[in-house]
Amino acid sequence: MTSTHPFLKEHREKHLQELKQFLSIPSISSDSSYKQDVLRAAEWTAQALKEAGMEKVQVMATDKHPVVYGEWLHADNAPTVLIYGHYDVQPVDPIELWETPPFEPTIRDNKLYARGASDDKGQVFMQIKVIEAIMQTEGKLPVNVKFIYEGEEEIGSPSLDPFVEAHQELLAADLLLVSDTTMVGEGQPSICYGLRGLTGLQIDIKGAASDLHSGLYGGAVQNPLHALSELLASMHDSEGHISIEGFYDKVRPLNKEEITTYQHLSDDEALKKQLGISELFGEAGFSTKARLWGRPTLEINGIWGGYQGEGIKTVIPSEAHAKITCRLVPDQEPAEIARVIQTHIEKHLPKGVTVDVTLFDQAKPFITPYDHPAIQAAGQSLEKVYQHEVLFTRMGGSVPVVETFNTLLGLPAVLMGFGLETENFHAPNEHFHLDNFDKGMETLIDYLHRIKEAL
Amino acid sequence: MTSTHPFLKEHREKHLQELKQFLSIPSISSDSSYKQDVLRAAEWTAQALKEAGMEKVQVMATDKHPVVYGEWLHADNAPTVLIYGHYDVQPVDPIELWETPPFEPTIRDNKLYARGASDDKGQVFMQIKVIEAIMQTEGKLPVNVKFIYEGEEEIGSPSLDPFVEAHQELLAADLLLVSDTTMVGEGQPSICYGLRGLTGLQIDIKGAASDLHSGLYGGAVQNPLHALSELLASMHDSEGHISIEGFYDKVRPLNKEEITTYQHLSDDEALKKQLGISELFGEAGFSTKARLWGRPTLEINGIWGGYQGEGIKTVIPSEAHAKITCRLVPDQEPAEIARVIQTHIEKHLPKGVTVDVTLFDQAKPFITPYDHPAIQAAGQSLEKVYQHEVLFTRMGGSVPVVETFNTLLGLPAVLMGFGLETENFHAPNEHFHLDNFDKGMETLIDYLHRIKEAL
Repeated sequence: MTSTHPFLKEHREKHLQELKQFLSIPSISSDSSYKQDVLRAAEWTAQALKEAGMEKVQVMATDKHPVVYGEWLHADNAPTVLIYGHYDVQPVDPIELWETPPFEPTIRDNKLYARGASDDKGQVFMQIKVIEAIMQTEGKLPVNVKFIYEGEEEIGSPSLDPFVEAHQELLAADLLLVSDTTMVGEGQPSICYGLRGLTGLQIDIKGAASDLHSGLYGGAVQNPLHALSELLASMHDSEGHISIEGFYDKVRPLNKEEITTYQHLSDDEALKKQLGISELFGEAGFSTKARLWGRPTLEINGIWGGYQGEGIKTVIPSEAHAKITCRLVPDQEPAEIARVIQTHIEKHLPKGVTVDVTLFDQAKPFITPYDHPAIQAAGQSLEKVYQHEVLFTRMGGSVPVVETFNTLLGLPAVLMGFGLETENFHAPNEHFHLDNFDKGMETLIDYLHRIKEAL
Repeated sequence: MTSTHPFLKEHREKHLQELKQFLSIPSISSDSSYKQDVLRAAEWTAQALKEAGMEKVQVMATDKHPVVYGEWLHADNAPTVLIYGHYDVQPVDPIELWETPPFEPTIRDNKLYARGASDDKGQVFMQIKVIEAIMQTEGKLPVNVKFIYEGEEEIGSPSLDPFVEAHQELLAADLLLVSDTTMVGEGQPSICYGLRGLTGLQIDIKGAASDLHSGLYGGAVQNPLHALSELLASMHDSEGHISIEGFYDKVRPLNKEEITTYQHLSDDEALKKQLGISELFGEAGFSTKARLWGRPTLEINGIWGGYQGEGIKTVIPSEAHAKITCRLVPDQEPAEIARVIQTHIEKHLPKGVTVDVTLFDQAKPFITPYDHPAIQAAGQSLEKVYQHEVLFTRMGGSVPVVETFNTLLGLPAVLMGFGLETENFHAPNEHFHLDNFDKGMETLIDYLHRIKEAL
């Protein structure tokens, strides 16, 4: 299927050529040798916004890669939608695994193969062309729009927080529209209305002043690796519950509909097969999707200490270390969770060692309740175009930019993404299904009209 | 003090010159570029045995560095003592920390500084010169003697087991005499009558087929690092007891005298200060020395898995690993202990992961009861020369050669060592107190006479 919208239909080939041009710019944000290419991609984006009829289009410098801004604010009394995407891409290693070069976009089997095809240049391109299509056919937009496109999403958006903080008035809006996420499956439209937050920390345990010989000293002193194991084991029970006092206090319970939907969406057999394991495991009493989307976790991400080489070394190491991150759900506060973990560590520290705790990144969990009018309208647009019942889902991860806009600007957010989890973002042979390219643009056009009435 | 033995007194200067010559050979067994020097040290040792009047002196090839053998078997009806030592030495790095070069032996403050001065060339030299002294003054020895000097002790004696196994008749004896250990303190003679054994293993835990993103999968699958922590924590209780079924079954209880002596020898304040810790820790109900010498341990020597770099990485690793060694006491069997640990691991493995266990080195614990006549005679010789009550001690570590001779030849062993723990074996500025050089030789002469009657 190609689009039914006359402008999109007429210009489809031209659009694909333009998108290929956009995708051929190697805007790898993590590698400073591509700095000029990242800038070229920003300028390409700005030019596209101008051609779409946007105003005050600017490439705005930050400490690293620029932000592209544009706006159109002539829809009196209508809400203002802040549209977000990113024009930077992931590195391409291992390059030898690409069937066609990552920056030579190629269409095979109605999929467009290139780095950034789905994450996120393809979706940025769709947002801009949708605006152009409405402007060209209707002469105006149904809502006010502002665009913010960043070039640092793949490196953790270090400049975004300061940028948003410094330009709160410029970016003021009623709704954030993000197209940088996935649908749950091919032909299955979905809207993600919640994301988990994050809090991270490192535990450093110290025993004797130096490594000790286990023959000479084994039995006389606490082994930091024993202390660490005991401490880490004390954080969960054997049924996957987190045993830290206060950890669950502010967790918003799932409602009945969520419990049913998540249960329904859990395909444990498929997941086991995908991950190569014979058994799933997690907090008892919840379905897999409920655990992934609606329940917090505490994961040890790394652990190390002592000898890691071949054979044995009879050492009692002086130090032991672990890194932990928690995925948080509404209404847990990252700083508060870090605090209850620290308290647990102090209280459960085994004898004979000392401990240091270092706090790392924190991100608030995010939710725009699925009965929010902006979410419901998005569902209606998707159902209309895809002719299929929409699913209201959450994601287990964080999208830091959503947290930024939610925290700094207080915006509800609609994550209307058209990628598929199988499309190899961050891996070789990234691609984008052109069916979703066409339907996605249809959906966005419908949504921008629908949202005018809904908000 | 110099020796009171006329021969030793007369030749003291000559002996020190000869020992310096021996110590100036860089017989570093771990570094193949010193292979010729190791051979030179073997030949030097053989020549010294010949000059002492030993017979059938041979430098016998092994897969790596040779064994030096010699014997004198003309003491009819007297017991045969197998005398062991090693002529190889540790590497010398960091060389810049040596006050005088490691292979330019120097006497300062009545201590002889050189690599190998105390571990073990100095003590090998003493053994040979003692025999020479008796032969020169008495024309014969009170007991039969056999010498076995190896050149691989510092690299774990890989050739010793096969050598001993292949030459059981040649090495047959009534007693093993080893001078490669330490006294408990300056001026405090001691005899070590027990060593701990060893059993080692590695635990490899496997979860999903590859590392997983903690946002996308956190909550759905077992984290191998959690499983490992829980498993390791299950091996001890909070009071330092090992919680593995059957682990203590064959542990020979300490007798009353041992309990009292070990309690008396425990100086917890000094140990804390030495190790830079504020608190000792170990199996409740035992003194520190009892835990070190007479009780088994299970130590995690290394642990690793997941992310060990800076900051955070939100990963659920696919694998988690730990290395464990146990120090064993009589009458624990290394293979049996490995088995009960394996059983524990299988029984306590958390859900959702698989485990592989690899067994490593094993060594039997060793004890020649301190009331054995050979041990008591050694105590009498030490008390006579040092004019100080002797202490009967054990060591927390293993001396694999003792285990080899004990297992393969069934020999009781007397560990009559004259080193001091402060003498920096394996570290820069290794040295040997010349007071113990003199008194040690006196003691050995007395012992070789005394043992004739005792056994």
